[in-house]
Formats: sequence, C-alpha cells, structure tokens
Amino acid sequence: MSTEQQNTSHSEVIELLKDLISRESVTPEDANCQKMMAERLSAVGFDIESMVFEDTTNMWARKGKEYPVFCFAGHTDVVPAGNLKDWHTPPFEPTIIDGYMHGRGTADMKGSLAAMMVATERFVTKYPDHKGSIAFLITSDEEGPFINGTTRVIDTLEARNEKITWALVGEPSSTHKVGDVIKNGRRGSLSGDLVIKGIQGHVAYPHLAKNPIHLASPAIAELSQIQWDKGNEFFPPTSFQVSNIKSGTGATNVVPGDIEIQFNFRYSTEVTADELIQRVLGILDAHGLDYDIEWTYNGLPFLTDSGDLVKAAADAVEEVTRYRPELLTTGGTSDGRFIAPTGAQVVELGPINATIHKVNECVKIEDVELLTDIYEKMLEKLLAK
Amino acid sequence: MSTEQQNTSHSEVIELLKDLISRESVTPEDANCQKMMAERLSAVGFDIESMVFEDTTNMWARKGKEYPVFCFAGHTDVVPAGNLKDWHTPPFEPTIIDGYMHGRGTADMKGSLAAMMVATERFVTKYPDHKGSIAFLITSDEEGPFINGTTRVIDTLEARNEKITWALVGEPSSTHKVGDVIKNGRRGSLSGDLVIKGIQGHVAYPHLAKNPIHLASPAIAELSQIQWDKGNEFFPPTSFQVSNIKSGTGATNVVPGDIEIQFNFRYSTEVTADELIQRVLGILDAHGLDYDIEWTYNGLPFLTDSGDLVKAAADAVEEVTRYRPELLTTGGTSDGRFIAPTGAQVVELGPINATIHKVNECVKIEDVELLTDIYEKMLEKLLAK
Repeated sequence: MSTEQQNTSHSEVIELLKDLISRESVTPEDANCQKMMAERLSAVGFDIESMVFEDTTNMWARKGKEYPVFCFAGHTDVVPAGNLKDWHTPPFEPTIIDGYMHGRGTADMKGSLAAMMVATERFVTKYPDHKGSIAFLITSDEEGPFINGTTRVIDTLEARNEKITWALVGEPSSTHKVGDVIKNGRRGSLSGDLVIKGIQGHVAYPHLAKNPIHLASPAIAELSQIQWDKGNEFFPPTSFQVSNIKSGTGATNVVPGDIEIQFNFRYSTEVTADELIQRVLGILDAHGLDYDIEWTYNGLPFLTDSGDLVKAAADAVEEVTRYRPELLTTGGTSDGRFIAPTGAQVVELGPINATIHKVNECVKIEDVELLTDIYEKMLEKLLAK
Repeated sequence: MSTEQQNTSHSEVIELLKDLISRESVTPEDANCQKMMAERLSAVGFDIESMVFEDTTNMWARKGKEYPVFCFAGHTDVVPAGNLKDWHTPPFEPTIIDGYMHGRGTADMKGSLAAMMVATERFVTKYPDHKGSIAFLITSDEEGPFINGTTRVIDTLEARNEKITWALVGEPSSTHKVGDVIKNGRRGSLSGDLVIKGIQGHVAYPHLAKNPIHLASPAIAELSQIQWDKGNEFFPPTSFQVSNIKSGTGATNVVPGDIEIQFNFRYSTEVTADELIQRVLGILDAHGLDYDIEWTYNGLPFLTDSGDLVKAAADAVEEVTRYRPELLTTGGTSDGRFIAPTGAQVVELGPINATIHKVNECVKIEDVELLTDIYEKMLEKLLAK
C-alpha cells in the first residue's frame, strides 16, 4: 500500500470531505460541521434554522417556499474510532491511499454530505429558478440514542405543517459498486427486555429452587424456531434474534433467581408490532412463565415502492453508472423511519458500506464524485424547470 | 429482640466459642485459632503437627498410637461477613441475644470446633487410658478453593500409611433441632464449563450470523428435562443445574459470537461422572453444536451406610436428645469427600444450618452444649475401655 502524497488539489467535493473528516464529530458532537455547511448553503440562497435539543445539534436548511420539497437527510456525527492502534492512519486526519479516502465517517456519512452539498451548489447555480424547494435535514445524533435528532426536527416541522415530499437519506446503501443498491424501505424494529423469574437456591437443594435458565430455555428454543412470516416482494421474512442473555450469581453452586433476556424483531409489512407482541406473550404464557417484559418500538416498517423519488434515484444511478440499482429493504434502521411516517417518499442512497463502523473506514474518491453526479441528476429530474 | 448483658460467666464450651468467633479467620486465614487449639490439645496429651501449605494452615493432632483412630474433622476458616450494615451485631464480636450466640462462623463451624475440643478434654480426663487414638484434622481452607487443606493433609497421612478409622466432620448437618440429621454420605459433584460457538453479526442481517443463544437453548432445554436416575435408598436422584449463562455484547443490535454456560451435577451412586459426561456430550453433538467444554470433578459420591460410626452417632444423639436422627446424603459437599476415599467411615454431625453463610449467622447456646454432650458420648461409645 503506497501513500499518495497530495501536492495536487482535489475536486471540490473531496476538499469538502477532507474538511468534514478532520472535524472530530463523535456522537453527539457536531464539531461545527453544520456551521460550515450552513455558511455554504446560505451563500447559495438557503434559509438556515439551527435546532439544538439537549446535546444534539440539528440543522434545517431550505431554499424556496414552494412544494414539492426535496430534502437531503443525513448526520454529521460518527461512531467512535475504537482502538487507535488498529488504524493504519489517524481516524480524524483525512488520508488518501491508493484512491481511497481514509478516516472515521468517510463512508458513514460524510462522503454523502460532501456530495449533497456540492451537488446542490452546482444545481442551484445552473437552475437558480428551480421548481419547489431544496432542504437539508442534518442531525448529530444518528449514531447515538436518536432522541434529540431527526425525530425532533420532524416534530417541529409537523407542528407547523411543513412537509417533505421526497427525502434522500445519504446512508451507505451500496454493497459492491456505488449505487448498486437503493434502500426504498426498512423493516420495522421491535425490541423486548424480558426478565423470567425463578427461585434462587443452592444447587445441592434443587427442590427448594426453581431454575430460571431451565424455565426459559424451552421458550427461547420455541421463539427462535418460529417462521413469523415469509416476507413479501419488498421485505425479507421477519427475523427474531436474542441479542443478550444473562443469569447467574457467578458462583457455580447457586441456582440464580432470574434471567434477563433482550431480543429484537426486524419485521416486514406482513405483520404488525402488536401481532408480534401478542404471539410472544402467548408463548411465554403457554410455558407457564412468571415474567416481566418491556417493549421498545424502534421504528415502524416503511416502504416507498414506487413514485417519482424511486424513479429519479434509479434513473440517475443508471445514467451516471450504466447499471440499474436494485431496490432493497434489508439492513439496519436509519433516520428514514422518522421521516416516512409524515407521508414523505424516502429512499436511502449512499456509498459502499463495507467499512462502516470499523477501523480503517474508507471511501473510494471516485465513488464520492459519482455520488455527487447522481445527486445532482436527481435534483435535475425532480426540480429542474 | 433484647440484648442480654453478660455479666455471668458461661460454660466452658461457650467461652471457647467466643474466643474462636473473635478471631477474624476469613478463608484462608486461621488467625491463630489452631495455635490456641493446639495448646489446649497438647495439654491433654496430643501430639501436634502443623502443616502449612501455601496460604493454608492445617493441623493434624493425635493422642495415642493405636488403632482405631477416631478423628474430629473441621475448619477454622469462615466465609466473609458480607455487607456489615446488614448485620445486627459486629460479625467478629461474639454477642449473645436471647440465648443465641451471634457471629460469623458460629454455626459453620466454630460451634462444632468448641464442642469437639471440650468433649475431648472431658473424655480424656475421664478415660486417660482409652482405646485407640483420638485425632483432629483441622484446616483453614474449607470455604476456599480446598486445594491446600484437608486433601493435602490426607495425602500426607496416606503417604506414611496413617489411616483414619472414623471421621466425625463437624459440618452443620442439622435442620430443625440439633442432631435431627446426620449426613452419612454425600452426592458426587461434577461441573462443566461450556462455550457454544456461533457467528457474530448484526441483528439486521441474520443470514450472515449464527445465533449461539438460539443454538444452545434447545440443548439446555433437553438437559434440564432429563431424569438422570431415580436415586436409591441413600441418595436422591441426580440433579443437573445451570448456574450461570452469559451471552451478548450488551448492544441490542448485535448477534453474539458465543455463549458461556456453567452447570453442575450433584449425582448419586447410580451413575458415574464419566457416564454423565458421555450423555452430555452425546446431547451436545446430537444438537450439532460447535463447542468447547471443560469438566471439573469436585468430589466423588461417598456413603457410610452402616458400621460402628453411624451407630455411635445415632445412638449418642438419641441418648442426649431423646430423638432418633435421620440419615441423609443430601446437601452440599464437605471435606468428608477427601477423607472417605481412604477407606474411613465418615459422618457429618453439627448444629442447625439455617443461618450459615448468611448475615446474622448464629447458633443456639443450648445446641452447642448438647453437641458437646453428643460428641463426648460418641467418644465413650467408640473408645472408652
């Protein structure tokens, strides 16, 4: 691996990406990324609203007063760098190696932010009198607890009946080539925190104890073997996964008093969260268990199965890259789940996700430039007069 | 509850018990309990051997050179006091409340030690030319890892072919009334440390992960429902208990890579440890699991189902208390497991175990005095000329 010494200047989008990378905006820090973006957007006619909620910095920027509203949605925060000694390059010093920009957040999602910005600047220069509005909904807590971020900006917009028509979320949707996958929906996510109660005792006196691990195991076995649905054209089958399980005092001669189990559903539009809850409770009851359970609704499933936005995204990718993207709803959640319930069409389209949340996160420079072209073409398709 | 102010002097055995309690002999500390005991035993004709192995203090004391050898076996160490603010009285200050002596180790087993000592002193005063020998095998690591205690003293004795005929272990065997239960054997104890391997991944991509909690649950369910044997006249059925289970990164969106499971068998003489191991491995293999397992043999089962010792113990209890004790093999392990394999007859007979290892451990003063009488009577039955 050779480190390319950069004496030549890069494209505008790569210079902007370097600026963003060098800001150490670990969740929920924004590190003035949004301030810098706001200055540039303001310069091309955007009105800026900074919305700070608790520890989270958000920005709602809009150019134009009319509908339809095309909104770039994204986040300036990044996940922590992890173990610094595992990085080949310092995570907050943008470094180009063999055509790839290395650094925390390059792929998730400062590459997308840079592409959105430059695409917008180019578009509004070419089409100062475009149709509708262009907006940016940017948060600094997408990687955190997502309490004070996109969801609160959406609440604010909803309260004044300001709507987004089309949202392009810059999450790294691509798998092998930039644009090969557009996420046009997401499964729902439902979590359960379950405590099954037994009776603590000494292993030597099993008749005086009631082992919660023994009580829980057949129920977990049953839950893990159920086919909840078969999915559908847009969604893979609903999946149940236990993520954490814990019981025991640490001593090897003590039967513990309870067991803690955390599980998560990623579910399709073939079931509802309430149906899943009822089935789980039915199984726990059928096993005669004494339990407490708390449910967390992480997000409803959403789907943008057709319409202008999906068509514009797919056509833009094909025109720029010469291949047709695949529409998928797999993968993790994104802030799209907070935008979709307002009635907006939502797609996610961003760089390759192979290195996200890992050490040595990187993005191909060429991909960021292609993504800029794709985003600009989407704006043209949807808002050019 | 009224605290009795003790201006009156107590019986000899209670004075000795107070001395022992006030020595803070938390495992593996002996706090000179054995030195004090050795001085008293030496004064009545015992030869003393102190055997210090690593952090553990042991004493082998013997009066007489002949067989049969009656041996009092016990330990001076106690479990930690735990949370001091939960104690009504300071754990290492012997305090009498309503006829009960309070303090760490009162029941497990300094009450027994005091009773053994005073019973022996009385007996040898009455019968200076008794038959055979009287011995004390005392350790300071019974509550610890039992590596450098009774087992190493036994090794030393075995190496010089010195045998114990009858061992009276002073563990708190009684449940409701002192002497209501004599333990004339113990189940075997076998532990397993099991790690079942899966493949870590993101809950959103279940097809790329292999959830070890899901894989383990049916196997645990099967193991926990097996009837391993039906026990027999002397032993309850073999029991399997999972004591600890742990899996998960803490994150709710990650499928963990493996699961750790600790379990324990308490087994009767109807099965062997190796048979249990083969059955467990067979079940794990039948479930197609990828696993590592480590076994720990905590002790073979032993049984003293008849003979002079059991008869002397039961008769002595009956003569002192007017009720006939029950012979049981239930309950936890004791150092009897190290003595029995030498061919010795072994019984455990001591105070009520209701408060052992708990805060506010206590023993009824009257029970310690009854126990002293019972022990003295056993010596008379077995060694008086």
